[in-house]
Amino acid sequence: MVGYFITFEGGEGAGKTSVLQALENKLVVDGHDVITTREPGGIEIAEKIRDVILNPAHTLMDARTEALLYAAARRQHLVEKVLPALANGKIVLCDRFIDSSLAYQGHARGLGMDEVYQINEFAIEGCMPDLTLFFDINPEEGLKRIVANKDREQNRLDLEQLKFHEKVYEAYQKLTSKFPERIHRVDASQTIDLVEKETYNKIMSFLKDKAT
Amino acid sequence: MVGYFITFEGGEGAGKTSVLQALENKLVVDGHDVITTREPGGIEIAEKIRDVILNPAHTLMDARTEALLYAAARRQHLVEKVLPALANGKIVLCDRFIDSSLAYQGHARGLGMDEVYQINEFAIEGCMPDLTLFFDINPEEGLKRIVANKDREQNRLDLEQLKFHEKVYEAYQKLTSKFPERIHRVDASQTIDLVEKETYNKIMSFLKDKAT
Repeated sequence: MVGYFITFEGGEGAGKTSVLQALENKLVVDGHDVITTREPGGIEIAEKIRDVILNPAHTLMDARTEALLYAAARRQHLVEKVLPALANGKIVLCDRFIDSSLAYQGHARGLGMDEVYQINEFAIEGCMPDLTLFFDINPEEGLKRIVANKDREQNRLDLEQLKFHEKVYEAYQKLTSKFPERIHRVDASQTIDLVEKETYNKIMSFLKDKAT
Repeated sequence: MVGYFITFEGGEGAGKTSVLQALENKLVVDGHDVITTREPGGIEIAEKIRDVILNPAHTLMDARTEALLYAAARRQHLVEKVLPALANGKIVLCDRFIDSSLAYQGHARGLGMDEVYQINEFAIEGCMPDLTLFFDINPEEGLKRIVANKDREQNRLDLEQLKFHEKVYEAYQKLTSKFPERIHRVDASQTIDLVEKETYNKIMSFLKDKAT
């Protein structure tokens, strides 16, 4: 018995994290064996790597160092948590995976998506998601949601930040065109209830296809 | 004015670290502008990465995670320390670099030298050493020296450890054959004085070639 690896992807403010939690509950109620996770996913080694990446004192962190650290954390999380769950026949819902590195480090930071793919391929050894849901929302809209959520002033949504997120969005569009079998779009501009519903339907349709 | 990047490579007990220190002094006396370094080389981000690699609690560390972490630390050390020194015209003597990853992770841990080369190429972007000195000593002899140095019992030189170091040695032999222009062999089975002398002569000969 082999499980399914489903990843949730998208820019900031697309709502994927809260949808992922809601979907776990729905799928469990339906009788599926599900775990949700996110990188670094509580794996000690990966958490330690994340501390290095996110330490605000590390202002000299080079973009390639960062990409290699994300790939290292991904590897460890995959080996310790995702693969054992898949081997036990579970459905693994994972908040962000390889496409995030391709979009953020590869395209938005300008390292090149192909190059970032190569180091990630070393990390994952062909263990690509069975299904990826791209939470599609206009980046300006996504950023506005974040700002609203956090009660921050609108001016945090400055031009540079928006440009960066536009590049991330552009990358996800490219990836969705490139891997139409794997990556399915969810209209994340809808209300959260509708986004949940669409996501649920897409997962159901995927599982139905697999069962036949 | 551009400096020269010279790396010292070899298995355990080859004496490269003490020779490197002695060589720095000799080259400075000769009037060269030299720095010696080693990965992680006192760069904070790289030290933090090394802490993750070497933490004895991290028994679940996967070999690919380890290889990616070494590549990340290498990148940061290169960008923060080696490249600025080279740009200032210095001779950089570095204790271990990419060949160590190819030998230890690529060959001895069985990840594949070509695969480990690829992630390191992402890290170094073609910044290969101008000259690499391979301190060539029979691995059994090298391990005996370590054991003798550390006043430990001979039984630490167990079969598994020896086999691992034989694989490392095999890898360095392959690399030396593959890159005869870059990698030069130093007979490290000699007394330390003679090893120093041979190393000095090889560096002098390299610098002379470059000057003409």
